[in-house]
Amino acid sequence: MNRYDTKDCIFALATAWGKGAIAVVRVSGDGCIGILDGAVLKRRSFKGLSDVETNKAVYCTLVDPSDSKPVDDVVVTLFRDGHGYTGEEALEISCHGGVQVVSSVLSLMASLGFRQALPGEFTLRAFLHGKMDLTRAEAVNEMINAQGSVGRSMALRRLNGALFRRIEEIKATVARMMSIVEVQLDYSEDEVGEDLTFPMGELDSAIEALGTIRDSYSTGRLYSQGARIVLAGPSNAGKSSLFNYFLKEDRSIVSPVKGTTRDFIEAMCTIGGIPVRLFDTAGFRDFSSGEIEDEGMRRSRNLVDSADLIIYLVDSSELIEIDESVTSDPRCIPVLNKTDIKNVDMDGFLKLSVATGYGFDSLCKAIEAKLREGLVLADDSALVIESERQKELLGRAASSLSAVKTAVSEDLPLDIVSMDIQEALEALGELTGEVTTDDILDRIFGSFCVGK
Amino acid sequence: MNRYDTKDCIFALATAWGKGAIAVVRVSGDGCIGILDGAVLKRRSFKGLSDVETNKAVYCTLVDPSDSKPVDDVVVTLFRDGHGYTGEEALEISCHGGVQVVSSVLSLMASLGFRQALPGEFTLRAFLHGKMDLTRAEAVNEMINAQGSVGRSMALRRLNGALFRRIEEIKATVARMMSIVEVQLDYSEDEVGEDLTFPMGELDSAIEALGTIRDSYSTGRLYSQGARIVLAGPSNAGKSSLFNYFLKEDRSIVSPVKGTTRDFIEAMCTIGGIPVRLFDTAGFRDFSSGEIEDEGMRRSRNLVDSADLIIYLVDSSELIEIDESVTSDPRCIPVLNKTDIKNVDMDGFLKLSVATGYGFDSLCKAIEAKLREGLVLADDSALVIESERQKELLGRAASSLSAVKTAVSEDLPLDIVSMDIQEALEALGELTGEVTTDDILDRIFGSFCVGK
Repeated sequence: MNRYDTKDCIFALATAWGKGAIAVVRVSGDGCIGILDGAVLKRRSFKGLSDVETNKAVYCTLVDPSDSKPVDDVVVTLFRDGHGYTGEEALEISCHGGVQVVSSVLSLMASLGFRQALPGEFTLRAFLHGKMDLTRAEAVNEMINAQGSVGRSMALRRLNGALFRRIEEIKATVARMMSIVEVQLDYSEDEVGEDLTFPMGELDSAIEALGTIRDSYSTGRLYSQGARIVLAGPSNAGKSSLFNYFLKEDRSIVSPVKGTTRDFIEAMCTIGGIPVRLFDTAGFRDFSSGEIEDEGMRRSRNLVDSADLIIYLVDSSELIEIDESVTSDPRCIPVLNKTDIKNVDMDGFLKLSVATGYGFDSLCKAIEAKLREGLVLADDSALVIESERQKELLGRAASSLSAVKTAVSEDLPLDIVSMDIQEALEALGELTGEVTTDDILDRIFGSFCVGK
Repeated sequence: MNRYDTKDCIFALATAWGKGAIAVVRVSGDGCIGILDGAVLKRRSFKGLSDVETNKAVYCTLVDPSDSKPVDDVVVTLFRDGHGYTGEEALEISCHGGVQVVSSVLSLMASLGFRQALPGEFTLRAFLHGKMDLTRAEAVNEMINAQGSVGRSMALRRLNGALFRRIEEIKATVARMMSIVEVQLDYSEDEVGEDLTFPMGELDSAIEALGTIRDSYSTGRLYSQGARIVLAGPSNAGKSSLFNYFLKEDRSIVSPVKGTTRDFIEAMCTIGGIPVRLFDTAGFRDFSSGEIEDEGMRRSRNLVDSADLIIYLVDSSELIEIDESVTSDPRCIPVLNKTDIKNVDMDGFLKLSVATGYGFDSLCKAIEAKLREGLVLADDSALVIESERQKELLGRAASSLSAVKTAVSEDLPLDIVSMDIQEALEALGELTGEVTTDDILDRIFGSFCVGK
């Protein structure tokens, strides 16, 4: 089986697995409507799918042709003439959302000769049929995986082609440079001479533009994957109470708390619109005490090491055991808890009382400010990427253009300039999918869910 | 808020909660298309929802009107003129299936003034608008909750109106009896006299027909809720191995094993098409041994007491500890395991080797036979119910008709006959929803999932 062979019809459950009012099964591939028509009960009121026009939803009964038994009453929406998601003949079956019904409909699809789709295969087909470029295809997956509203809104901008259009603009600029160089090469000049009026200003702008988009990756990554915040500090400082307080205060969707090991628990929440993976290190101990490290301590230390931010909590009424190797870490926000019991001041420490809620807003603001340090501000018009692939290609394009700049300044042979420009164009072409290989597509679409 | 007030527009996520390629949000209520149109981005290529005809799916961008920020690119399918599920103006939004996207779309719906639907409210509206009777409405929920293909196929038959039509036939017969009696009453005869030619044959047929459908409840219940099968027997007889063997052999969907207590584990599978809840009583001990009963033993005993079938497993190489109070139970299938190690015969015991698979098919056949004992056979044409409400009303109608029979045979006053017929008609009317109360509807639709 070859995923790039779009001759066969593929199917998949497109909605989440589980019980719901309805579930949607997607089918795509030329001829799929005619094949499904063989499994549709013909009635006086409904003569079949063949005459139904594109984008129309029709109510009908699916029947297993092998034994004529009805499978479910469904609504089928047909897509012809490139109107569907994939750009090929396609249909969507909206069936009753029971696990047993869904299984039966999926079995029926398989028995009709449709093939179970691979992850991302519908979007791959949309790409192969020119319905979207690669940056938009990646944005589809990024939309689905978005953890917070900012991440979703950034992904939607890319889905609507904002990144694609920006890259195309830059590519057009670079292509113009290429034609200037080629004209020179045609005139048999093989070094950058006085006759070459190379658009250095445009080159600088292109390098800067690529750098800006590439640097937005850290912002995009933060919003898409979430910041790792670890609650640390001596036992009984109130870490678990603060952990629960965060989850209670957060109005957004909170995943169930996962007790991955007995050494820490983890939960998702959002702080200032930034998705956060919050870790409570129940087993956190003072690393400087010289105790022999056990497995729990090792895991806690790993968490702290990989954290984007550490909240170090101490009990203001018991100012002992402060681990300065942690509080002096630039990622650390030191916090005095239980200030309702004993109100003390300490340099560099925020004051908090989880019991009364005092100081919680300031803590959230401090967290937000620290997470945004050095990040491209994500305003409404910002173009932000979250794909490592895109970051690498933007970086490659930028360094090729920097090499062009050097070559031009140093009067290097024109074919070297031409080669560097070519490399930049290839990186940009790979970004949008103009140039691509099966291997690249496998990597991109393999991370999608089935049904998309 | 009154759920019987269908003036407002309701919305709900119709697909299962979780990450998928797409998710569907349903909206129903007069005016909903115009209201949603205010949250649709107008473009040169798409001027709005107002001109889109019924049953058409259109691709568009949803925008939050409060801040003009795009929410998602979606496909909206419109239903006008009673074409949708509810029979009122309605629409379905197919959005990207990410948890964050779904939350945003749901928030947008709420901000547009749509109200979150109650469980079953879409189907309730379909019923209130005469799109389906109550037996079909109940079948919608039964489809979604079906555990096996037989249960699904029975529910689909009811969904297609098989039960409704049968009840309407019986109701027509009973209504004819009523008109005969009423004619007599009009002629001032107030006792059943010689002039009354009461259709006793039809009455008998109606009583029998109602009884047959009512009795199908035990079959329907078995297929819808599943049979409870408990694996019992001394420790080391191979109960856990057999448990795992059942799950491995079952080709249908198997729910993850739930370790509800440390005393037993439970899993769903199907045997001979019958959905089964299989319990492995790890803590099962010999109840006759006189040991003081502990909590674990009490739970195991409860399981055995409430089982539809008990598989009592003993080790053929260690024929000790056989609990005859269990093996003599009519629900019990006694089994000799490990016959590959020691092949013995014992009266009334099936021979099995979980290690080699020997005897497993015979065991499944024995289970199937025992579960079907005394049940209406579920062939393709059988009308089977699984609703307790329907069973009770069928029973009530049957006994009212039996009372009619007695009254006619004993020449009782005609108004007593008339009253009994009226009672039968009312029970049948309540069954299909011709006669109903808010309380009845609350009970039926309250058990639905939201979005259906």
